[in-house]
Amino acid sequence: MKKISVLGSTGSIGTQTLDVARMHRDQFQIEGLAAGSNVELLLQQAKEFGPRKVSVATKELADLVKHSLPAGTEVFYGREGLIEIAAGTDAELVVTAVVGSMGLPSTLAAIEAGKNIGLANKETLVTAGHLVTAAAAAKGVKLLPIDSEHSAIFQCLNGERYEDIERITLTASGGSFRDYTREQLVNVTVEDALKHPNWSMGAKITIDSATMVNKGLEVIEAHWLYGLPYEQISVLLHPESIIHSFVEFRDSSIIAQLGNPDMRVPIQYALTYPERWNSPAPRLSLAEAGRLNFREMDFERFPCLRLAYECGKMGGTAPTVFNAANEVAVARFLRKEISFLRIEEIIEQVLEQHEIHSEPTLETIEASDQSARELASRL
Amino acid sequence: MKKISVLGSTGSIGTQTLDVARMHRDQFQIEGLAAGSNVELLLQQAKEFGPRKVSVATKELADLVKHSLPAGTEVFYGREGLIEIAAGTDAELVVTAVVGSMGLPSTLAAIEAGKNIGLANKETLVTAGHLVTAAAAAKGVKLLPIDSEHSAIFQCLNGERYEDIERITLTASGGSFRDYTREQLVNVTVEDALKHPNWSMGAKITIDSATMVNKGLEVIEAHWLYGLPYEQISVLLHPESIIHSFVEFRDSSIIAQLGNPDMRVPIQYALTYPERWNSPAPRLSLAEAGRLNFREMDFERFPCLRLAYECGKMGGTAPTVFNAANEVAVARFLRKEISFLRIEEIIEQVLEQHEIHSEPTLETIEASDQSARELASRL
Repeated sequence: MKKISVLGSTGSIGTQTLDVARMHRDQFQIEGLAAGSNVELLLQQAKEFGPRKVSVATKELADLVKHSLPAGTEVFYGREGLIEIAAGTDAELVVTAVVGSMGLPSTLAAIEAGKNIGLANKETLVTAGHLVTAAAAAKGVKLLPIDSEHSAIFQCLNGERYEDIERITLTASGGSFRDYTREQLVNVTVEDALKHPNWSMGAKITIDSATMVNKGLEVIEAHWLYGLPYEQISVLLHPESIIHSFVEFRDSSIIAQLGNPDMRVPIQYALTYPERWNSPAPRLSLAEAGRLNFREMDFERFPCLRLAYECGKMGGTAPTVFNAANEVAVARFLRKEISFLRIEEIIEQVLEQHEIHSEPTLETIEASDQSARELASRL
Repeated sequence: MKKISVLGSTGSIGTQTLDVARMHRDQFQIEGLAAGSNVELLLQQAKEFGPRKVSVATKELADLVKHSLPAGTEVFYGREGLIEIAAGTDAELVVTAVVGSMGLPSTLAAIEAGKNIGLANKETLVTAGHLVTAAAAAKGVKLLPIDSEHSAIFQCLNGERYEDIERITLTASGGSFRDYTREQLVNVTVEDALKHPNWSMGAKITIDSATMVNKGLEVIEAHWLYGLPYEQISVLLHPESIIHSFVEFRDSSIIAQLGNPDMRVPIQYALTYPERWNSPAPRLSLAEAGRLNFREMDFERFPCLRLAYECGKMGGTAPTVFNAANEVAVARFLRKEISFLRIEEIIEQVLEQHEIHSEPTLETIEASDQSARELASRL
């Protein structure tokens, strides 16, 4: 029995993590579940999996669910509640699937408590890669990526020596607007942007795919996960999203990971690593797919990706600011306050006005995040 | 310094093995070289690499080269000479790149002497997979595949558990006639057949690619190398030969190995495993390739592949007979004695008339090989 806690259990990755646990019922024990305000689903999950501890966003919500929880399930709330689920259970592995910057302190708490991390929270490595990787190394815990691209790279590196890596390449579908020119982007709507060609995901990440910010954040994550300089991390347009990413070694050999788009596969791999277990995910038939297409990434067409590389190379708080400005800009686009192309302008302007701090502490990161958000909401 | 012997040093794989050794001059020491009758090239190789022992086909050739060899290089000849190079040197690894059935006793001798095998001789596993894998297991020596497909599978299995394999898929370019119908094959010439679309190889293997016999032999080799039943080994048409082969695991994840066609890469991997070293092989750019195509294998169009699967499943001497009948039929086609489609008919007829021996000894294998050849040359 592998003991697991899930931070963000009612979100997309969280529910799919529990789908995986359900498929291998006698192999996983759920120790803790942390949700936000979707208490109805949390209660259902608690009844099904019987965790020792659950957490919700606020004291009010905690009071609301207290009497409906199974006997033996304690309830916590807020930032401390999240940290309790991350660090205060017998879980060996904590899946960090909360969205946004609150994922960071809870992930650090889980690492401090010696737990392996199933990493699905982007902000963790983007904003504090130096702190998180140092803590993980010091505690000897594993950071097991759940993103399909990073899981692909992780799988391709099985049994290989990091020093033999020539470069890694993250594939990008190109998002909803991959065949649009810059001119055609001027008048695109929120509804257009939300039609992702391959993956069904939340609104925020679908917009981030269209702007290529998502790939930019993944590049920064990859830098920290695999300890590679940005010069050794590439992005390639691959509309079918079938090759999830690949590694080129110095002998010129390329190892790639392929599959149909199904997040349960990378989630399960993080849970069962280094083993692989059966999965009901639909099998990929390359004969049925027929053909795979590739083309060079265009940094003029997708300036946010260029910005992400620049921020990654600058380091310090630059990626934090990039991420925070983007979050606010995307929210404003989704509220139809700004146009699609305004997203990249806002990110660029916030970065121009931000003073970068190198080797920032958690407090500095939070302060930079806050000030970038304020600025982005005013521009 | 890794000590290496090469059986078949003047052939295509042999010379490329020495190309690899030349690129990493201070890492490899050549202990032994065995050639056939190309003594001019062998002498040149001996001068460059200074092996302790060399071997040639006959006593006459041995007498011919004796006085031109560097001081300290002993010369042997014939079947015993080949075995001396395989088993009688300090080599840790023996590359078995001789063509044909004489590869088998020398490979077995190298295994008995505790040497790892860089396996490039097809007949070894096709005709005596049960003997060779048992001997390798008993001696704890590694069989490191040099064929690009088997090297690809081997690389994809790095760090993985064999029990997690769902299936392996060997890709096939389809050979010179991949877009021909059966009707169009009736009148094809030797010259047509020798135009392989992707790889530049010898005449025999180019014909074997066009008939799909080559892929059939690879399927049988894969069965022995990876201990998988034939039901877990597939073949997929992939005209570009860029994905060299891939493994599907039970979690639905696929790991593939890709690259430009360059035999120096799998040869070097066998020599440096589990490390990877720099290689001058041209790098693959998927953006430049632009697109990869795949289609289902057609067993009606390529009946030799169906026959190979059947022989593999029958086991015993069936694969030996398949291989021997094919060798003779291809030689006859190259001499323009028979038509292209007659190759498959001869294989089928020889198989029909052959009595299969299960678990054959080396002697039984050799006798079956001989009788199949005699029959194939008369049909």
